[in-house]
Amino acid sequence: MTRFTHLDEAGHARMVDVTEKTPTVRSASAVASVRCSTEVVTALREGTVPKGDVLAVARIAGIAAAKKVPDLLPLAHVIGVHGVVVDLEIVDEGLDISATVRTADRTGVEMEALTAVTVAALAVVDMIKGVDKLSEIVSAKVVAKSGGRSGDWIRGTTPTPDVG
Amino acid sequence: MTRFTHLDEAGHARMVDVTEKTPTVRSASAVASVRCSTEVVTALREGTVPKGDVLAVARIAGIAAAKKVPDLLPLAHVIGVHGVVVDLEIVDEGLDISATVRTADRTGVEMEALTAVTVAALAVVDMIKGVDKLSEIVSAKVVAKSGGRSGDWIRGTTPTPDVG
Amino acid sequence: MTRFTHLDEAGHARMVDVTEKTPTVRSASAVASVRCSTEVVTALREGTVPKGDVLAVARIAGIAAAKKVPDLLPLAHVIGVHGVVVDLEIVDEGLDISATVRTADRTGVEMEALTAVTVAALAVVDMIKGVDKLSEIVSAKVVAKSGGRSGDWIRGTTPTPDVG
Amino acid sequence: MTRFTHLDEAGHARMVDVTEKTPTVRSASAVASVRCSTEVVTALREGTVPKGDVLAVARIAGIAAAKKVPDLLPLAHVIGVHGVVVDLEIVDEGLDISATVRTADRTGVEMEALTAVTVAALAVVDMIKGVDKLSEIVSAKVVAKSGGRSGDWIRGTTPTPDVG
Amino acid sequence: MTRFTHLDEAGHARMVDVTEKTPTVRSASAVASVRCSTEVVTALREGTVPKGDVLAVARIAGIAAAKKVPDLLPLAHVIGVHGVVVDLEIVDEGLDISATVRTADRTGVEMEALTAVTVAALAVVDMIKGVDKLSEIVSAKVVAKSGGRSGDWIRGTTPTPDVG
Amino acid sequence: MTRFTHLDEAGHARMVDVTEKTPTVRSASAVASVRCSTEVVTALREGTVPKGDVLAVARIAGIAAAKKVPDLLPLAHVIGVHGVVVDLEIVDEGLDISATVRTADRTGVEMEALTAVTVAALAVVDMIKGVDKLSEIVSAKVVAKSGGRSGDWIRGTTPTPDVG
Repeated sequence: MTRFTHLDEAGHARMVDVTEKTPTVRSASAVASVRCSTEVVTALREGTVPKGDVLAVARIAGIAAAKKVPDLLPLAHVIGVHGVVVDLEIVDEGLDISATVRTADRTGVEMEALTAVTVAALAVVDMIKGVDKLSEIVSAKVVAKSGGRSGDWIRGTTPTPDVG
Repeated sequence: MTRFTHLDEAGHARMVDVTEKTPTVRSASAVASVRCSTEVVTALREGTVPKGDVLAVARIAGIAAAKKVPDLLPLAHVIGVHGVVVDLEIVDEGLDISATVRTADRTGVEMEALTAVTVAALAVVDMIKGVDKLSEIVSAKVVAKSGGRSGDWIRGTTPTPDVG
Repeated sequence: MTRFTHLDEAGHARMVDVTEKTPTVRSASAVASVRCSTEVVTALREGTVPKGDVLAVARIAGIAAAKKVPDLLPLAHVIGVHGVVVDLEIVDEGLDISATVRTADRTGVEMEALTAVTVAALAVVDMIKGVDKLSEIVSAKVVAKSGGRSGDWIRGTTPTPDVG
Repeated sequence: MTRFTHLDEAGHARMVDVTEKTPTVRSASAVASVRCSTEVVTALREGTVPKGDVLAVARIAGIAAAKKVPDLLPLAHVIGVHGVVVDLEIVDEGLDISATVRTADRTGVEMEALTAVTVAALAVVDMIKGVDKLSEIVSAKVVAKSGGRSGDWIRGTTPTPDVG
Repeated sequence: MTRFTHLDEAGHARMVDVTEKTPTVRSASAVASVRCSTEVVTALREGTVPKGDVLAVARIAGIAAAKKVPDLLPLAHVIGVHGVVVDLEIVDEGLDISATVRTADRTGVEMEALTAVTVAALAVVDMIKGVDKLSEIVSAKVVAKSGGRSGDWIRGTTPTPDVG
Repeated sequence: MTRFTHLDEAGHARMVDVTEKTPTVRSASAVASVRCSTEVVTALREGTVPKGDVLAVARIAGIAAAKKVPDLLPLAHVIGVHGVVVDLEIVDEGLDISATVRTADRTGVEMEALTAVTVAALAVVDMIKGVDKLSEIVSAKVVAKSGGRSGDWIRGTTPTPDVG
């Protein structure tokens, strides 16, 4: 039976009570991909546009976004955010983004990691939209988590009975 | 030559000066797709989980996110947000999300529309991650805009020379 | 027939499109009342607690709250906030709060005025709860508005056919 | 003697030092009431307007507001928010709203619960003001708390010497 | 006679009414200086630490801060922010920061420019405090403004009768 | 060798991982100075402008700003803020501001204290700029910290080998 923990018995949205969960070190990683024109990729690679600030702006937007999760997602908890890394790599088709978020608090940080890469991707699209209005986000997903009661998990390596 | 308007001549991030642009009615639309397990899709469709609040939470998160763009994207302008619609449709593979944002201000609202669908998608993933940890965002893109100096544009119907 | 403009035809929440409305000077006023123990009222009046900062904190919280409406109310527009006054009066039963908000933008500011007095009231309760846990907000309502297409209105003086 | 803990000896506003308080499970509940026209009540009840999104928007606004307390109330602490439930009930005279907030942190969450119901009430007024400009908040108060050094408390059942 | 426009006749804080002011192009510039150890200056100059991200983080923090003025300063108006540039220069004694903010709205943007350089300075101190706990902000001031009723002004070139 | 902990090995901005640090009581103090015209100083002293609200607004802006550090500084952690005091003193040359922030969490609160005094200073400049456009911040610095692994520190009394 499918149980949506963010809804109560009457089906109303709620913030799940985690007061009884133990604060432990938890981390989660996510990735996202932006696809854009070869012109943009070339410009970034050849340095005809300054790579530094494009990637820096996206990285900082991603780090900041990890901290905004309680504000962005109505049912997310207010927890401590104790470590964030966001990386961007220029690839042939665009940019690949990854993030790892760490906390020593009561809930997992999958949404913080996923929000970090997604908002970093939005920042990339914002900066390149003037030269490539077709750029798009083609993927954003959590790829790993560790810590907490449900233990470690890596996408692709663990069969997950949750999937129908 | 590729010109990244969000960077100055020295390649430093800046908020582009739009004081000379005319306030006119502008709109933009974007779409995003979340893919999730058939179990989740079935539960939403058959009503074994209350569809209302799941979609309502995502819709409201999307509307609210359109207003948070200046806070999320470092180089985005502070402008008026004068109309937002976010729709979610349950499909066989998950949920499809669309949004249209309207303003009567100085800049286009493509990023507002794209941010709305993307954060709505994040809210969906947040709510279903307890039953489907493999759910993911597989697409998020601007699909149309109107108003402003550069005129109307619809993805797919207009050849765009910007793409290499 | 009752028409909830914040819902579309399918009954989904939306931010009403106001792009076609004209920016004009508009204002709205609201009042709220906090009831608290006579001990607190006496202390505030006789100066055995410094009246200045209690009222100043509430006033500033109210002014700041008028600016947070787009963040607090999911369907509220992002508009300019161009003038805010919040007043507090110590009365025998507690504190009476009033606020007037002004804008030269596209929507009325009734919710800004009502939010200002309500959050000022919350700030009062926050500060006195240590000495009077029974303090409560007993009223918060819009009392007047001017400007905009629907014209001027004062509570109590205008028969309003909307009320059943 | 009345002691306003939010003021120092000189009567200046401060955030009370709670570093020495113990993190323990604490909860608080609050209620608020919105009064509106029978036309609105009937529309909500008979479903001529979709009840779902009206109540869902208010509920989500209330949950989100519980997390905004440090931003809304100048002297409130930044603490973890670990569980929030907001309920709305349509009654003959309007809507009754209740909320319970839980934390495992250093301070009580009375203000979080009171802010949740109050902002949910503001969201209701915002959505119905187009059809009933006389709607108003007629009550908002904390009704119970548990946990922390001062112990459990329920409004009405405990004589409180603080009241004059 | 000194008139504090942010206070009403009774001396209470208020947001000055600017509804009657005309939206026109206005700009303001401010500068700030951070002083730090020669070790930090050398490291930044010689590239033994990557200069790019240190300056980029501060620049982006400054741009973002210009947009947060209504949230940071209780009596500031909500206006459009239509252009922001923040520059950082490494000098022998530390870093010099400058910013220019532009708007086409109803109020001057002196506080937006001053907040931009000040928060950029805070971001610098945050990043170098691990290697130089003595770093400090030694100056932050508005240096020029243009537009609006009071006209253009440049610090140092205009005698100002306001100064006693 | 200079190690900027906010940058990773590749020199990219990151939020330093503090999950392994122990939550302990920590405090930090900072000071800032605003210089303004003697006319303003006299007006504040003689009460021809109400001193209360000017200082109260700045004090409250400072307390609120201590809570906004994760939002203002991209690489700052989300931690609990458990006590804040901000004081302002009118001196011959302007105003001197001091703040102490306390937490029982995983990181020091130097930036919270420094941000509190700096934003309080910005609020002062905002309120007096109408009568003294030359007012400026002439100093903002951390002056003491206690708690945490690196122990207690007071500016001026401890030789610090970090300074070149």
